[in-house]
Amino acid sequence: MINVNENYLKLRGSYLFSEIAKRVNAYSAANPDKKIIRLGIGDVTQPLSPSVIKALHAAVDEMADASTFRGYAPDLGYEFLRNAIAKNDYVDRGCDISPDEIFVSDGAKCDCGNIQEIFGSDAKVAVCDPVYPVYVDTNVMAGRAGDFDEALGLWNRIIYMPCTKDNGFAPALPAEVPDLIYLCFPNNPTGATITKAQLQEWVDYANKNGSVILYDAAYEAYISEEDVPHSIYECEGAKECAIELRSFSKNAGFTGLRLGFTVIPKELKRGGTALHGLWARRHGTKYNGAPYIVQRAGEAVYSESGKAETKEQIAYYMKNAKTILDGLKAAGYEVSGGVNAPYIWLKTPEGLNSWEFFDELLTKANVVGTPGVGFGPSGEGYFRLTAFGQHEATAEALERIKNL
Amino acid sequence: MINVNENYLKLRGSYLFSEIAKRVNAYSAANPDKKIIRLGIGDVTQPLSPSVIKALHAAVDEMADASTFRGYAPDLGYEFLRNAIAKNDYVDRGCDISPDEIFVSDGAKCDCGNIQEIFGSDAKVAVCDPVYPVYVDTNVMAGRAGDFDEALGLWNRIIYMPCTKDNGFAPALPAEVPDLIYLCFPNNPTGATITKAQLQEWVDYANKNGSVILYDAAYEAYISEEDVPHSIYECEGAKECAIELRSFSKNAGFTGLRLGFTVIPKELKRGGTALHGLWARRHGTKYNGAPYIVQRAGEAVYSESGKAETKEQIAYYMKNAKTILDGLKAAGYEVSGGVNAPYIWLKTPEGLNSWEFFDELLTKANVVGTPGVGFGPSGEGYFRLTAFGQHEATAEALERIKNL
Repeated sequence: MINVNENYLKLRGSYLFSEIAKRVNAYSAANPDKKIIRLGIGDVTQPLSPSVIKALHAAVDEMADASTFRGYAPDLGYEFLRNAIAKNDYVDRGCDISPDEIFVSDGAKCDCGNIQEIFGSDAKVAVCDPVYPVYVDTNVMAGRAGDFDEALGLWNRIIYMPCTKDNGFAPALPAEVPDLIYLCFPNNPTGATITKAQLQEWVDYANKNGSVILYDAAYEAYISEEDVPHSIYECEGAKECAIELRSFSKNAGFTGLRLGFTVIPKELKRGGTALHGLWARRHGTKYNGAPYIVQRAGEAVYSESGKAETKEQIAYYMKNAKTILDGLKAAGYEVSGGVNAPYIWLKTPEGLNSWEFFDELLTKANVVGTPGVGFGPSGEGYFRLTAFGQHEATAEALERIKNL
Repeated sequence: MINVNENYLKLRGSYLFSEIAKRVNAYSAANPDKKIIRLGIGDVTQPLSPSVIKALHAAVDEMADASTFRGYAPDLGYEFLRNAIAKNDYVDRGCDISPDEIFVSDGAKCDCGNIQEIFGSDAKVAVCDPVYPVYVDTNVMAGRAGDFDEALGLWNRIIYMPCTKDNGFAPALPAEVPDLIYLCFPNNPTGATITKAQLQEWVDYANKNGSVILYDAAYEAYISEEDVPHSIYECEGAKECAIELRSFSKNAGFTGLRLGFTVIPKELKRGGTALHGLWARRHGTKYNGAPYIVQRAGEAVYSESGKAETKEQIAYYMKNAKTILDGLKAAGYEVSGGVNAPYIWLKTPEGLNSWEFFDELLTKANVVGTPGVGFGPSGEGYFRLTAFGQHEATAEALERIKNL
């Protein structure tokens, strides 16, 4: 009789957003007349931009003609897209990344979830607390997390790096040296950033200790302030210790189109093995490329018109971020984030924990957000709102919150 | 210092098709005037059908408008597609599969590669020999394959089930009971099929022993004869022991569009755990859905016009299969497959092994095929040609082969 993967059985309940959906659906079913405003999950609401739509239609037409039809894509992604990424996201920012260090994929979530697989099962993993659940869950599935400590709400083989008000939601270098360090800046869920000097400390720490940093930069397009790094490769020595994960979901609204990429510099080796080759092997064996038409859509994001439209979309969402920040402050909440990121992190009112505040907001204001504790124990007493709604709905949600 | 996944280091050379590409590129570079005809990799050449193109354009337009824009897809796939699959591929064939037992994905290769992850790392795996390399490689990566025996050309923890001329390229039930059994019919690479009665034996064997069958039915649309099962769920008891993997790549030409699905019946449990729930967890944690526009394209395959067009495409390729079969027979080759599958399996001429024949065909006829040994040691002395080329090119390739 075959055994199932017993690590899967250790996983905690259901995925955070499934639990939220369940509560919202139950409330909706009982109160069909209530108009619910969703500022919970990080899904975009603006349509794809004209340049992207144009590129999609053109690529679809190519697929209709035998002479321009495209079958299997190259393993790493089409060159036209990898060239555009290398130039715009790296070379133009002074980062020496070449197209063949870029692996095109169907999204940063998949890459975040799969990348751990190229490392040993004994790797010690460090994550921020609070943290995007995928980092931890995929390491639980791989057997690296140990056992869950019910009292602490933590896995006993994971190194947690608390991100709290006291450290400005930027973690300190851990005392116990991890093998694998997940960092995400601008951060999901707190919306916090770190400076280039702070990130350089992480790179130096990783290089000194032989750790590998998995740098999730899915939200870099939202950076509005100087001295906030857009890529970890802006730091010296990062090519020897860091993998960067990027997404088209939040900058260009590709959540329903699926496109992302991972950068693994060829210099990055551990135990004499180039990680680039390991990921290439995984990519080639377990994955079959992002759709041609979607890769053409990605290319269009880097056209002159595409860039202008993307900027506009981001400005649209960041106007929401300001509405939320200003509204919450006016209502007396303690808030952070929302300046270089589409996420606003707020302290729940005295006497209410994260899920209690979730229920209060859902039932009294009919607004859906995300309980901070869903991202880890240090998120308890916090709550995440996202700027991805529509202007009118976001403004109305804030009015309702002010009137609570 | 972090360790890499040492199982990856055990992997053999590069992926079969990379090696083929390398040899073909080297030959092309040295002989730029030669017109090479590719009947090697299983990629389609016919454009997407009008119904699919129409559905893609319509869905792209929906993505351009905020009121019809779609972000993240539901974890299991859109209901419109799962309903169409359940009805057309299962219920209409008398198989009791419901939409919520279907998981939409970006292709059968990814599913084939990832599905092993829900099982224990000690699972004993059985594969046909020859076999689609992804089944074995992904189990090597997971540490289930043991060590590679250079002399035998086999992994010492994998149970190989030889498919030879003597058994009609259909494997016998293995003496040592496996935990996980990969079966693919119509078969890649041999093009062989098994009857419903034969498949029922496998189902009974799995149920008796607690094994799980991973049934790859990517080529079911090519079945032309009676008594060849289109789905394993045509067999009694299959819902208690079998997972089925399906693809839109070969029936509707989606190799560059990426769409597939996996069926896990809710009854299928091992050690008291429903495999459906495990795969749902993996899907929800490490994957983020196939693009909305591609799922709409998949839906169009099941429309009346889509079905007719798909049938025409398959007829187009099967005309090639006949050209290849007839041509090879006329040239005195021993051949099989090509009747219920787009693959033709031929015995290499006396004195030439698979790779020698590959080189001979490449350099003397400028035709690319796939060496049988690349699929496993029992494939030595065999060679695969595919029916996915264009009519004219396929006919010309056969003329060249006849004149060898």
